[in-house]
Amino acid sequence: MGQLLDGKLLAQKRAGKLKEKVKDLKKRGLNPLFCVINIGDDPSSQLYLKTKKKRAAEVGIEQQVYQLAQNETQNNLLTLIDRLNQDEKVCGIMIQLPVPDQINLNEALEHISPSKDVDCLTPSNVGRLWRGDHFVEPATAHGILALLDYYQIDLRGQNVVIIGRSSIVGKPLAALMLERDATVSILHTKTKHLDEYTRKADILVSAAGQAGLITADMVKDDAVVIDVGINRQNGKTIGDVDFAGVLPKAKYITPVPGGIGPLTVESLMEQVVALTRRKNGR
Amino acid sequence: MGQLLDGKLLAQKRAGKLKEKVKDLKKRGLNPLFCVINIGDDPSSQLYLKTKKKRAAEVGIEQQVYQLAQNETQNNLLTLIDRLNQDEKVCGIMIQLPVPDQINLNEALEHISPSKDVDCLTPSNVGRLWRGDHFVEPATAHGILALLDYYQIDLRGQNVVIIGRSSIVGKPLAALMLERDATVSILHTKTKHLDEYTRKADILVSAAGQAGLITADMVKDDAVVIDVGINRQNGKTIGDVDFAGVLPKAKYITPVPGGIGPLTVESLMEQVVALTRRKNGR
Repeated sequence: MGQLLDGKLLAQKRAGKLKEKVKDLKKRGLNPLFCVINIGDDPSSQLYLKTKKKRAAEVGIEQQVYQLAQNETQNNLLTLIDRLNQDEKVCGIMIQLPVPDQINLNEALEHISPSKDVDCLTPSNVGRLWRGDHFVEPATAHGILALLDYYQIDLRGQNVVIIGRSSIVGKPLAALMLERDATVSILHTKTKHLDEYTRKADILVSAAGQAGLITADMVKDDAVVIDVGINRQNGKTIGDVDFAGVLPKAKYITPVPGGIGPLTVESLMEQVVALTRRKNGR
Repeated sequence: MGQLLDGKLLAQKRAGKLKEKVKDLKKRGLNPLFCVINIGDDPSSQLYLKTKKKRAAEVGIEQQVYQLAQNETQNNLLTLIDRLNQDEKVCGIMIQLPVPDQINLNEALEHISPSKDVDCLTPSNVGRLWRGDHFVEPATAHGILALLDYYQIDLRGQNVVIIGRSSIVGKPLAALMLERDATVSILHTKTKHLDEYTRKADILVSAAGQAGLITADMVKDDAVVIDVGINRQNGKTIGDVDFAGVLPKAKYITPVPGGIGPLTVESLMEQVVALTRRKNGR
């Protein structure tokens, strides 16, 4: 029977430590100010923003939301980013996804100052990630590594299979796991025969966003299964993994909810604090 | 019996076209000037510099070598890069590898203006590569894709296995192949049981720099085998692949020499021309 990788618990533990760090920063007059730009009225974005705000408040980080209209122009968005880049008080900036169609997201991301790029999505921070001289890490990937470390699961020489090649999860996670000496395969919607890869994975990470994608027959005995999927089904939140089926087979498995989700939010706050410290040379 | 992927022939064809482009640029008063910084006296670097200079001359590109002493300081290197960045006439800059121990290569690379970064090694160009909005591509990866395209070998849904995770070959090639919808696995020195991966590869790329690494039993029937290795053995240049053994099994295979090597040099010149055009808005 698989052991649960308790992301919620670890997130709480790390939040406790982070709170102390923030206290310490504030004593020195440094106030981590985190700005989120939200464009339009996507309902799940609203939910994420609320969760982030709550977590931020718990560790003592001030989160400001800049709410733009659904039909906001690219120009106005860039002007706002410029303003936040120049504002000495702002430590971290992120753009809440998804954005409306008229927004050129890549251009907007390039506009964020790398020194305030909480999500590690600006070109130079992505490049530093792949070169191994990074200081900011994408929240989900950072959270996954923290969880593996906490349970002392070594990556060196392990066969890691990642499903999903997004800029926010799959690709940066591949970079960080390669750096830890894992052998990494990146699978995606165009991959034929997913199971031929997954069945050999020592560590399987699913970030496909597809409920029930990973069934027991696709998982190796004693594998570590990390479920990054967040899918709504019949009013419930479930992952990509058929949890009940895979649990008996896996050595370790993350639940959904309570696995990677809470760690992602917590890791985001850690990045805000890291940027604040760096900005002030500590 | 495998068909040869003739990199030398393709390099010649592409050089012919590139020469026309350069002529056209020169008619408009644009002169592609390519600057290479060489530090110290590594003998293989001297050889590469000579080859590059010859190829550059053939297509009409002017290559200037800035030769620095083996004990040159980091500061002097950065000053030289600054000067070349600011020089309007310079279209492309590269640092010849390897560099002596006292040089901080990452810092030096970060110093090159992304708009003159022929090797695609600056953080922001690496980041753009992974985000899919690139205009400059690392020469070897660019050459490999050109060769596959020339022989109409489709990457979509193919199982690609890359041995080597360097910043100049393995990682950027993974990015470009993922973009082409291949499933990509990145192997390296810490990978256990290389053959378990290689034996399933539709397209196998070896960039390990280890003579005789890939033997026939490690290759799937009808695989495409790309040998990026350049190893000296008994005065001869050989690749990573046991060519004689693998040839009968593979569908396509690159020879060494005459495979990826000439395409790398040719691709480098293409990047110089691309940067020259871009700099001048064409």
